[in-house]
This record gives sequence, structure tokens and C-alpha cells, in this order.
Amino acid sequence: VVTRAEKKRPVRRSTRKPGPLIVIGGHEDKTGDCVILEALASRLGRGPLLLATMASTLPHEQLAEYRSAFHRLGVKNVVELAIGDREDALDGSAEERAALLARAAGVFFTGGSQIRITTAIGGTPIFEAVRALHRRGGVIAGTSAGASVMSATMLVYAASDTSLRVSDALRMAPGLGLLPHVIVDQHFAQRGRIGRLAAAVAQNPELLGVGIDEDTAIVLDTARELRVIGRGAVYVVDGSQVVRTNLADEETDCCVSVHGARLDILSSGDRYDLLLRRAR
Amino acid sequence: VVTRAEKKRPVRRSTRKPGPLIVIGGHEDKTGDCVILEALASRLGRGPLLLATMASTLPHEQLAEYRSAFHRLGVKNVVELAIGDREDALDGSAEERAALLARAAGVFFTGGSQIRITTAIGGTPIFEAVRALHRRGGVIAGTSAGASVMSATMLVYAASDTSLRVSDALRMAPGLGLLPHVIVDQHFAQRGRIGRLAAAVAQNPELLGVGIDEDTAIVLDTARELRVIGRGAVYVVDGSQVVRTNLADEETDCCVSVHGARLDILSSGDRYDLLLRRAR
Repeated sequence: VVTRAEKKRPVRRSTRKPGPLIVIGGHEDKTGDCVILEALASRLGRGPLLLATMASTLPHEQLAEYRSAFHRLGVKNVVELAIGDREDALDGSAEERAALLARAAGVFFTGGSQIRITTAIGGTPIFEAVRALHRRGGVIAGTSAGASVMSATMLVYAASDTSLRVSDALRMAPGLGLLPHVIVDQHFAQRGRIGRLAAAVAQNPELLGVGIDEDTAIVLDTARELRVIGRGAVYVVDGSQVVRTNLADEETDCCVSVHGARLDILSSGDRYDLLLRRAR
Repeated sequence: VVTRAEKKRPVRRSTRKPGPLIVIGGHEDKTGDCVILEALASRLGRGPLLLATMASTLPHEQLAEYRSAFHRLGVKNVVELAIGDREDALDGSAEERAALLARAAGVFFTGGSQIRITTAIGGTPIFEAVRALHRRGGVIAGTSAGASVMSATMLVYAASDTSLRVSDALRMAPGLGLLPHVIVDQHFAQRGRIGRLAAAVAQNPELLGVGIDEDTAIVLDTARELRVIGRGAVYVVDGSQVVRTNLADEETDCCVSVHGARLDILSSGDRYDLLLRRAR
């Protein structure tokens, strides 16, 4: 039901650009230069920064740590988006949280398990409010599991430090979809994840694989271009020119083969055009 | 001084094809199907298989282990090419060892430290005899450190499970050069080495980076084509289309960037044309 008052409100989403996305590979610096958290802080408008800790089983520890880091960076208003599970996202106080989102400057999804995020808020008014916040210019950021959920189809589980076999578990699930056409992986070089990212991309080479190292992030001030910040590298696997993969072979026990991918390794300051699929 | 008798000997190198090269990513199966050691065994002609254990500080353990594995595969004549260091390669009995090489069916360089191999035999008659054995059709194989030495310029040391910084140590040294135009890396997915291999290739993109997983090998029955065997994958990084790298930037503290590499992930049965630089 749309009230008269709501009808009179200006439709802000059509007059503003979507806000920045900041997607972090985990273990971002919280005590030194804080290049990544500073990039987040500098993009915040008025209103609280909401810390979405539902990926973690230790939300209070995370809250304390990030509050202290952001405080040093001049962000005094850091509030927990207190959602433990789906019941929290749907219960009586969910409206209260949606109202909090309505006046927030940004949301930061912290690390843990990505499936805890999507199972808790997927399809709820809470997530709709996150999406609306992004559309009206709010900052959306995520680290580690909070980075993976940005994809439309997210990588949930696959072995690291190995080449995947065609028959190996590569668990994917619907993500939040704030960063479409991309599969994000994190802790990338540190956990040896080129094998699993290439296998994920080979499933549908339309998607671009983006593997982000620890203490490294991609910043999207527009939907078309990402820029790398932080200490590590970002590995972009473009499967659009792939000529062959054995992933659909039903009888094979081989490792996944991917012939003809393009690999761009980007470091701090590098930009990548998501439309042209080219570093620059 | 060339004697009359030598002049009369047929020049075998010009009438025969060079022998196969088998380059193994380490930890090849020695007790099960032994797909890789079997590929080696099946290519041996008459004469002993020489086990070149100079990379290792535990040569006798290696000898016992490989003797037992090869014995099961029907290769009864496995002899140690007993060279501990450079003195051994140059002392009075070196001639005896060169004579052993002259009637060998193949040489297998085992794992350990690649620099121990090149410092021991580089530039000695022993290595010349290895080269001659290869030219006249003998099998040359190497695993782990014994794989790395196959390159003309070999990767000696660089950190694994990380993206290299431009200022990070990436130690390379002249290798045995039996596999030219290629840089070999081993234990590839298991140790997260895409970062260091890409950085090595970016130093001179003329070279092809070939990262070989554990229990996986490339077999070159001709110099032009490699074929993958074994359980894991082989990652081929082709830098010839690279449009930019920051490796030559003197003042940067960034991670190595490499824009526009081609990545082929090959698995058992896949072939790669080293001339056309294409999987097939």
C-alpha cells in the first residue's frame, strides 16, 4: 500500500547514481595505513556505517575491531546491522533495521561464511533496503565472505591449493548480485585459488573471474570500471575466448582443463574495463 | 685431440632424433599405477637408467625408493650417477661416469635443490655427456628440482602462495637448457605458484611459463609438442601478447602486474604446440 506521503516523496533512485562498491580479498589492514578502509571511509556520505556481521560466528569481536579502526579514520558512527539469522531478518524489529538502512551511508559485510549472509537476508526486506541504499548512492563494501556474496552466482566452497578435478566439489550458490557478470574469489594468492577460479569461470565463461589477494580490494566507482587498491594483486580470468574445457565431460576423472583463457594480473592503481574486458 | 678410431666412428647424433623429455611436477606416484614413471620406463632403450640424485642431500634414500619403483615396472638396471658435488664431476673417476652415460638409456634428475644440480655439473664433461645422450635418443627426465633445471633460465627461488612485489626476490639462474624457450615451475597448484610464474614470464615474455602440478608431467616426444600425463594440471602462461607489466618500474613497491597474458590449463591427454603456442 502506497500512502499519500510516500507518493509525494521524490523518487531519489532515479536522480542519483548508484554508490561505490568496494570488494576486499580479506585480511585488510586495520592498524596501519588502512588504505582500503580509508577508501571506504572517504566515500561515505552522511549517516551511520552499518557493519553487517552475519557471516561471522564472532560478530561482537568483529564489531569492536572495525569500530576501533574506523574511529581512527574519522568514522564515528559505526552501527551493527544486528542480524544473526533469517528469523532476525524477518522478525518484528526487522522494520527497525530497514529504517536504519534507509538513513545509512553504507554497509560493510564482514568475513566468515558467505552462505550465512545469503541464507539470512536473501529475499528479505533487509536485503531490499541494502539494494536501495546502493541505488541511491550508498557505499556497499565486503571483505572475504562479504566479497564473495557480491557476485550474482557466488563461489561457496572448492578446494584451494590444488587443481580441481571435473568430479570435485565446486559449490556455488546465488549471491547478492550487486556485482553482476563477475565471480569473486578472495584470499586469492595466499590460498592458491587460480585452479578453483578457472574452474568456476569455465562453468560459464560469460562470467569474469576476479580473484582478490588479501589486503587488496577492487573499487567500483562506476559499474563499468574497477580500480585496484592495497598491497596485493587482483587476478582477472576472462573466459570469453576459451576454446575448450572438459567440464561438461561426464565420464572424465581428469583435472579441469581450460584452453585459451586470458589472465590479467593487476596491482595497485591498475584499472580494468569490465565492458571491454581490458586492463588499462 | 681426435684419434683415428674416433674419426671412423659414425656420428650418431646426426642420424638419430633427440630422445624424449619427461618433466615432472614433483611427488609422482611411486607405489600405485605409476603412470608417469611407467611413461619413462616404456621409453627406455637398452642400457641402464641413471639416477642423478645430486639435487638431494639424501641421495641414498632416493635411490632405494626409485630402484624399488622402477623394479616393479620392469626396469632392473637403475644405477646411481654418483656425483655429490663439482669435485666429483671433475675428479679422476669422472671419466668413468661419462663412460656410464655413454651407454645409458636415460637419466632421471631427482628432487631437492636445482642449484645443486647446475653448480655440480654445469660446464663439466658429465653434463656434455647428458646432452649427448639426449641428442642420440636417450630419455631425460626430471622431477621437482630436476624439472626446474630443464629450462635455459631456471626459477631457483621466489615466494609461493603470494603475489610477488616488484622488489621481491625472484631468483633465477642458468639452467641445463634441455627445454629451451620455457620456464618450468613445479608443485604448482599445491604451492600456489601462479604469482611467481607470471612474474618470471613477465621478465621476458618471449619465454613460455609452464607450471606443473604434483604427480603430473609433460612429455615431449618431439621438441615441438608437449603432452600432459598424470593426476594434476599444467598451467601454461603465454606472455607474448602481454601489453604491459610494471616489472621494469624502478621506483614501485607494488605487486607485479601483467596485463594480457594467455592462460591454458591442461589436464591428462591434452597437448600443447610450443611453436604455435596453442593447446590442442
